[in-house]
Amino acid sequence: MSLETARTEYLDADNVRFAFRRLGPTAGTPLVLLQHFTGTMDAWDPAVVNSLAETRPVIVFNNLGIGTSTGRTPDTVEQMAADAEAFIRGLGLPLVDLLGFSLGGMLAQVLAARHPGLIRRIIIVGAAPRGGEEHLLAVVEDAFAKAAPDVRLPLFFTPTEESQRAGRAFVARATARSEERDPDSGDAVSAPQAKAIIGWCARKDEGEATLRAVAQPALIVHGSDDTMFPSINAYNMFKAMGNAQLIIYPDSGHGALFRYPARFVAHCRTFLDE
Amino acid sequence: MSLETARTEYLDADNVRFAFRRLGPTAGTPLVLLQHFTGTMDAWDPAVVNSLAETRPVIVFNNLGIGTSTGRTPDTVEQMAADAEAFIRGLGLPLVDLLGFSLGGMLAQVLAARHPGLIRRIIIVGAAPRGGEEHLLAVVEDAFAKAAPDVRLPLFFTPTEESQRAGRAFVARATARSEERDPDSGDAVSAPQAKAIIGWCARKDEGEATLRAVAQPALIVHGSDDTMFPSINAYNMFKAMGNAQLIIYPDSGHGALFRYPARFVAHCRTFLDE
Repeated sequence: MSLETARTEYLDADNVRFAFRRLGPTAGTPLVLLQHFTGTMDAWDPAVVNSLAETRPVIVFNNLGIGTSTGRTPDTVEQMAADAEAFIRGLGLPLVDLLGFSLGGMLAQVLAARHPGLIRRIIIVGAAPRGGEEHLLAVVEDAFAKAAPDVRLPLFFTPTEESQRAGRAFVARATARSEERDPDSGDAVSAPQAKAIIGWCARKDEGEATLRAVAQPALIVHGSDDTMFPSINAYNMFKAMGNAQLIIYPDSGHGALFRYPARFVAHCRTFLDE
Repeated sequence: MSLETARTEYLDADNVRFAFRRLGPTAGTPLVLLQHFTGTMDAWDPAVVNSLAETRPVIVFNNLGIGTSTGRTPDTVEQMAADAEAFIRGLGLPLVDLLGFSLGGMLAQVLAARHPGLIRRIIIVGAAPRGGEEHLLAVVEDAFAKAAPDVRLPLFFTPTEESQRAGRAFVARATARSEERDPDSGDAVSAPQAKAIIGWCARKDEGEATLRAVAQPALIVHGSDDTMFPSINAYNMFKAMGNAQLIIYPDSGHGALFRYPARFVAHCRTFLDE
């Protein structure tokens, strides 16, 4: 079973329907993945997800309003986190680990701080704290203006030859699935999500309190040249959290985890298995 | 064979004699360890060294004037690096990886920048760049004033209960060897080494050039609460090097690698085996 072949399942909870896919063994603490701005389940990198699922249960899902999940995409990180919590509890999971990328990494911070009994460990990639530094709209606009074969090449990878090669390999992997493929997100997703991200980063005086409330072990992974959320965000999150480990990769943009999939999975395992 | 039981061997080179010990398999790129301020071969953590030697050749040695090596301890990082190069070439090694801790991490920077054909990859722990921020004398004085059972408890570990427990376990491991144990260093080592470290950090305008000259892959590991060389040094080294990866551990002082030996070895392997 792989991310490219797993059947999409559905969970009904609180009058909404969540689309999700399950991978890996059934035993062990499940790792729930929280996706980036406008991303669906099919925007994850199969090289990362399938490798993680070799040694633990991995669950990908679409939050409300995304892909074939019903409901409306909310415009705050806090409501998205509450929706993700409803999904996790709806599946009957008593304890999970989280891997949140970008916007997903913001949800992971809120969930870890609010629900210490439900969240065991969190991995945050390419994210920012409340009040962090973001350049979302400028970077997205700039990436679309480049008219690349896939907008994620300029958005997630640095312009170096090696990084772009890694980017093309990622795009090939992430576009391989054709059956039951999630529909791409439109304005009904991107508009409220952008508002949520910008609003999160505008709250300059609340960042440290949220971070200090995260008592669980946290692994913060970031790209050296993330233009959307500069790496100083990762350093600041690390400094403010009580039990965080910081890893920053060289020659990597916003999609640091897709730039070095094998290295990233090795670091996740070292962290989660400790 | 382990760090605690390996016989000490001797290499004659340029009218001086280097004491060293070899561990692990004979095949593979050897990992040469460069030691901290006043440290001898026996100041390494067996939990780190023996575990690293499970999968690669590992060589520990005493640089000039240390332990049973002859010669005089020089008072510049550059001369210490030249002496280490003489040792590596004297052993007939064509290509090595380096793991440098603290002062050893400064030597590793010089060696990597000067000898790209000899040095394949470097791991730098608890170090500073040329022109970096150091508090050597104040921190050492403060640690000795605490009159702890071993000065490395306040020097290498944070004051938290968990960190001090890890510190006591480290001290027990590092003092287990009694036969052929290196004599401790005296003023003839500490005085020139302190001068070398302080001189290295005083050269404020030369740091970036050395770091940019390191083209090899580098792994920089640092403790969150290193008081001797604050973690901003690690972040700055990471930013200036072309191909460095940064890892900072939580609740860890100067001896970050001894605080989490299993995690550190896993990170070294992920880096060196890539």
